[in-house]
Amino acid sequence: MAVELYNDGKHACLAFYDLVDEEDDHAVQSNQFLIVDNGHGAVVDPGGNMTHAGLLMAMQKYFPSRELDYILASHADPDIIASLNKWMITTRCKVLISRLWVRFLPHFTSGKDYSERTIGIPDEGMAIRLGQNNVLALPAHFMHSEGNFQFYDPVSRILFSGDMGASMIDHDEAAEPVRDFDAHVQHMIGFHRRYMVSNKICRFWANMVRSLDVRMIVPQHGARFEGKEMVERFLTWIENLPCGVDLMTQDHYRAPKA
Amino acid sequence: MAVELYNDGKHACLAFYDLVDEEDDHAVQSNQFLIVDNGHGAVVDPGGNMTHAGLLMAMQKYFPSRELDYILASHADPDIIASLNKWMITTRCKVLISRLWVRFLPHFTSGKDYSERTIGIPDEGMAIRLGQNNVLALPAHFMHSEGNFQFYDPVSRILFSGDMGASMIDHDEAAEPVRDFDAHVQHMIGFHRRYMVSNKICRFWANMVRSLDVRMIVPQHGARFEGKEMVERFLTWIENLPCGVDLMTQDHYRAPKA
Repeated sequence: MAVELYNDGKHACLAFYDLVDEEDDHAVQSNQFLIVDNGHGAVVDPGGNMTHAGLLMAMQKYFPSRELDYILASHADPDIIASLNKWMITTRCKVLISRLWVRFLPHFTSGKDYSERTIGIPDEGMAIRLGQNNVLALPAHFMHSEGNFQFYDPVSRILFSGDMGASMIDHDEAAEPVRDFDAHVQHMIGFHRRYMVSNKICRFWANMVRSLDVRMIVPQHGARFEGKEMVERFLTWIENLPCGVDLMTQDHYRAPKA
Repeated sequence: MAVELYNDGKHACLAFYDLVDEEDDHAVQSNQFLIVDNGHGAVVDPGGNMTHAGLLMAMQKYFPSRELDYILASHADPDIIASLNKWMITTRCKVLISRLWVRFLPHFTSGKDYSERTIGIPDEGMAIRLGQNNVLALPAHFMHSEGNFQFYDPVSRILFSGDMGASMIDHDEAAEPVRDFDAHVQHMIGFHRRYMVSNKICRFWANMVRSLDVRMIVPQHGARFEGKEMVERFLTWIENLPCGVDLMTQDHYRAPKA
């Protein structure tokens, strides 16, 4: 069932929290998103093969999938975009992804040339016209992927933050906003320490986010952060977290015994 | 056509350089590998959907695909393992990948539970029994993927190095070893600067590789480095290359204009 993150009748942001069953599917729980503006639509991080049919059906209430303008992909991981071939076949959409991954996408598809439906986002990001408004692709490189973008919707003031802010919880909990930040840290900290690449980068990101008017951070795994106060709690937490290569030493790079 | 990197009659290492046509497929050129030991076989980084049929056919001369023991995946990118569903269906193999990506693999497949055929490699690496010998999974985290392994074969003394040492050249050139290191740098430097995560990590890796007896470094894109001298040329080059987060500043993390 879709959660309406925002809906003013002309512009809507929908989140789908229950298309992956982390128990039955033996897979990491993941969220998919739909942004609709004045009769135009974009899916953010549509997910892997297991979510395609469910998302296609669930989105119809808000937007006819065959009219889809864009797939916005934060990066090229399987939980983000392994369903690409199915979306290319069932819609006429274009896919936007970092220029670093444009030539990796054909490995998901089966022979047909989709290069004219593939748009590479430059490292500095870009404004993406959707209906009568723009969605912004924000640089989020190395959080975690080397070529990585987040998508900020200035109408709803929602930041679709990809893996940043992700939490490892079940899909019922994921559909609810974070209520108690301190209690929520245990569900985030292991992932952020190991998958985010360095604290320096997290600090650059937090500074950038503070330059925007963000009222909600919505990650691709787990629960969202609603309201300025929760957004700031998250920014303060992540900019103080050593992670990734910060924590690696020579001891992590030793050949195992033959 | 397979290139025999090593073959003593009981143990062989084969490389497939021409299954992706970087022009016709609009995709990054990539190499696939087969290790055979005394009637047992492992495919290293089998690739995306476009390489499955070609690799399945090409490998039969050396090993019957239905008897395949393992797929060894350096990480979870589409050019590495997007063909996973097809391999799970057409063989009885197990897939080995970093524990970080085990729960991401089901997003490549279509509903069937393959968790009993999926082995998570711990961060410290492991020895993998193949026939009468071991293949070593060496830690290569953040080069580029957060959970990343390379595969070292002590019989042939070949290091299958994944993205480390990759070069962006066409598939005909890729099948030949590097002859002139200095001239080859131009094909590597852009990729390594942007996709490798930090120089610190590259130095740890070079130290680890020097602790082993490596006579060939065989990357997953582009040409291989043959002989101790060429191996050392590459190690010296990469341990002196600033890359990834080393090169990022706040200027790389700014919101584009709405």
